[in-house]
Amino acid sequence: MHPTITRMQEVVAKGDDTKIAEILAEDVTFMPPTYFATWIGRAPVAAVLGHVGQVFSDFKYRRVMGDGHDWALEFQCKIGDLDAVGVDLITLNDDGLIQKFEVVMRPYKTIGALRDAMMTPHFHRSAFPRVPQSAGMTTPDCILGAGPDDTQDAIRRA
Amino acid sequence: MHPTITRMQEVVAKGDDTKIAEILAEDVTFMPPTYFATWIGRAPVAAVLGHVGQVFSDFKYRRVMGDGHDWALEFQCKIGDLDAVGVDLITLNDDGLIQKFEVVMRPYKTIGALRDAMMTPHFHRSAFPRVPQSAGMTTPDCILGAGPDDTQDAIRRA
Repeated sequence: MHPTITRMQEVVAKGDDTKIAEILAEDVTFMPPTYFATWIGRAPVAAVLGHVGQVFSDFKYRRVMGDGHDWALEFQCKIGDLDAVGVDLITLNDDGLIQKFEVVMRPYKTIGALRDAMMTPHFHRSAFPRVPQSAGMTTPDCILGAGPDDTQDAIRRA
Repeated sequence: MHPTITRMQEVVAKGDDTKIAEILAEDVTFMPPTYFATWIGRAPVAAVLGHVGQVFSDFKYRRVMGDGHDWALEFQCKIGDLDAVGVDLITLNDDGLIQKFEVVMRPYKTIGALRDAMMTPHFHRSAFPRVPQSAGMTTPDCILGAGPDDTQDAIRRA
């Protein structure tokens, strides 16, 4: 097991964005289960993952498969009363940091509940101040809980 | 790479249910991305997977991770005009056949399109005659495109 993958299992479930940031590449990309969109950059991705960790309950990693740069971490959790199963698809870079983090889940209804939970005002207040506007970092295409068409409205409400 | 996983990559994308059936355990369980439900048994699961293979287009397996009994097969595909990424979570039995087949995907919108596509009359006609009512095989909890509450109605319409 790669030490970053071991560490990931310790910190992601707890939703501690500071500890999560330590294992992310500076230009990490994150692709959520809710929308076909990409977040870019350590700070915004850590903020999103931290918030997701707080929305999920009874989170538990199951099987961890992979080697080298390529890993699949199977998990189960609840969102409210709804059960979910998912996989964190991870690509590590040559420094052993997470370069790509893509999340796939089931079932449909629970992903809808996740989308709704990520749209709460709490999320907007906590996540947007962390999005850097400089330092070569790209603003995420959209927030986890909003599609491309909703982004501007979500930012305004934040 | 386990030979069943190699074979799976050859036959699942083509939607050929006869060839898919050959690598499934008799009491295989299948958990779709659309509903939190379980199909049980080689014939109904092969029928569902065969139909899914026809609904997906541009299907391509990406990374394959795992060893022994435990495998994660990352894929990308389209459902209509919508892009999707997913993982086939596989557990093999001691005979090297697929005992458990769970599918997780992203994003939400595309899984909704899959659910709609699985509800077409074509699917009902093709899949239901294959569900055995005897031989010790359990009838699936529900069809891929319908939740538990919809099953009876779906069967009536089939």
